[in-house]
Amino acid sequence: MPTTNQRWVLASRPEGKPAPENFRLEEVELADPGDHELLIQAKYISIDPGMRSRLSADSYAAALQVGEVIEGAMVGEVVQSNNEKFAVGDLVTGGFGWQSHALSNGRGLAKLDASMFQGPLRVTAAIGVLGIPGLTSYFGLQDLGQPKEGETVLISSAAGPVGATAGQIAKMKGCRTIGIAGSKEKCAYVTGELGFDACINYKEVANLEDAIKGACPDGVDIYFDNVGGEMLDAAIANTNERARIIISGAVSEYNKAEPRGIRNTLRFITHRLRMEGLVVFDYFKQFRDAQAEMGGWIMQGKLIYTEDISEGLETAPAAFAGLFEGENFGRRLVKVN
Amino acid sequence: MPTTNQRWVLASRPEGKPAPENFRLEEVELADPGDHELLIQAKYISIDPGMRSRLSADSYAAALQVGEVIEGAMVGEVVQSNNEKFAVGDLVTGGFGWQSHALSNGRGLAKLDASMFQGPLRVTAAIGVLGIPGLTSYFGLQDLGQPKEGETVLISSAAGPVGATAGQIAKMKGCRTIGIAGSKEKCAYVTGELGFDACINYKEVANLEDAIKGACPDGVDIYFDNVGGEMLDAAIANTNERARIIISGAVSEYNKAEPRGIRNTLRFITHRLRMEGLVVFDYFKQFRDAQAEMGGWIMQGKLIYTEDISEGLETAPAAFAGLFEGENFGRRLVKVN
Repeated sequence: MPTTNQRWVLASRPEGKPAPENFRLEEVELADPGDHELLIQAKYISIDPGMRSRLSADSYAAALQVGEVIEGAMVGEVVQSNNEKFAVGDLVTGGFGWQSHALSNGRGLAKLDASMFQGPLRVTAAIGVLGIPGLTSYFGLQDLGQPKEGETVLISSAAGPVGATAGQIAKMKGCRTIGIAGSKEKCAYVTGELGFDACINYKEVANLEDAIKGACPDGVDIYFDNVGGEMLDAAIANTNERARIIISGAVSEYNKAEPRGIRNTLRFITHRLRMEGLVVFDYFKQFRDAQAEMGGWIMQGKLIYTEDISEGLETAPAAFAGLFEGENFGRRLVKVN
Repeated sequence: MPTTNQRWVLASRPEGKPAPENFRLEEVELADPGDHELLIQAKYISIDPGMRSRLSADSYAAALQVGEVIEGAMVGEVVQSNNEKFAVGDLVTGGFGWQSHALSNGRGLAKLDASMFQGPLRVTAAIGVLGIPGLTSYFGLQDLGQPKEGETVLISSAAGPVGATAGQIAKMKGCRTIGIAGSKEKCAYVTGELGFDACINYKEVANLEDAIKGACPDGVDIYFDNVGGEMLDAAIANTNERARIIISGAVSEYNKAEPRGIRNTLRFITHRLRMEGLVVFDYFKQFRDAQAEMGGWIMQGKLIYTEDISEGLETAPAAFAGLFEGENFGRRLVKVN
């Protein structure tokens, strides 16, 4: 049985981009599971850009405290159990953060059906395409976006896990689907592998607003936004009447003391725009059905996903910092055990 | 029979606030009505802040051309008619702009039931509280806002025609209703006459965001916005989860070459906000029913309205410019005949 837990805690609050000294790796003794408790050994943990806001004290969201474990999703295996609902060997997932082990009383813990993970459906999907990023795409695009056949859907961070999934679902719904990504390689992936109709490399265009106009000659009906700021404004400038703007993430804004925001608010009046934020937990009761449907798409080869996995818990802070350099290609995870 | 028409046309495009030289008063010969045409003599015309955007060439909206009549609503009387649907003496309303007379083929022209205008329901209401501003409040608050009893509704330009009507409807729906206005007198009107629960004089507060927090201790569930920019951001900072932001107007932005916009877009994610623009013509088929309901409220004394009427067509440009100084108090109209 493991006797120590390794965990990354917040050492100091980052200003701007997160730096190595903002994180501290601790090794602490593991208590034995108490009544109804169980011990999980992590297999993989997730590295999430949205966590950045919670590392700042003056954030709009409830901030993580210095000394607390950095948050993230975990997929792991039960190695000790005093809980009748979970047995040793069970595959589970929960929000246990960046650590090698977790004690749980079973609340907020989901047991996975190990038999479903086969072929293209890997266990890492539980904290990726079937986890929060994939569910964000699924509910954001469909419930907030209400895509109709023939509409044009524009998606930023199109090579990222949320954008990639949203774009593939948009294609299944019969939409013309345009991505925005930050390199030639990412754009080749977005059009070649994911099947988007076109992809704009925003680093290589003189004017993004014009580039969107060129790629979306019929205008934008749905903009699925993971970036915020100037890119969001450029998309708004190309919206059709009654366009829906889904605010799923804002990676360009997370590190800023004073966010840029958007300037094009007048267009909300002239074009009856709707902009809406998404918190995927609002759809909690529909998660199972969504995962079953997406799992089916994956097995049929209709939905693909790419992961970017680094080895060893010690790589987590660097993997996190890299998210803000646009270096990740697919869902960023760390393999722990 | 009148033989000449007086009309205000766009002489040059304003930069920033509209100036007298941007408008030219023309006197032109009136043609006789042709087949199926009729001639209307204006009684009142409306002065609308939203017109400002259309005076700029590079506007997001289709711009008015130099030489064209400035747009506005008109209530008038048919003085000649070759149209079987309209008789001399009929009271009518339509979007004929800033002029003393209008020729019409009947399209887009609404006949008013003269008998309904009695007591508190004056004929000017047809282009005010029962016209576009009042309908904007009616559909914006109810359809986009979906107010629920006990919720907090915050309304900017609360003493203006749109805000005043929206606030009174919010009170009827059982909402705690807070206004924002630009003078002590306006705030006294908003709370004393209109029955809002409180009013913030934004010119006298050190920090608007804090003032809203003080006036809305339970947070803001609906923000009905007529101003945009910093005021919109201050309201967003005080929103509750699932708050609805109705973009009805943006008087602080209309004169700007580069609008300020909003910075608080991250809150859309953390608080599942929805922001939506309103174009009241989308509800065209429901106008009659809405007008009947609002007319009833007015006759019962449940809905009041204030008008700010200047005498003579020549006063129109100054009345328009004054809108951007915050000097108007109620619906701004010009009495033409």
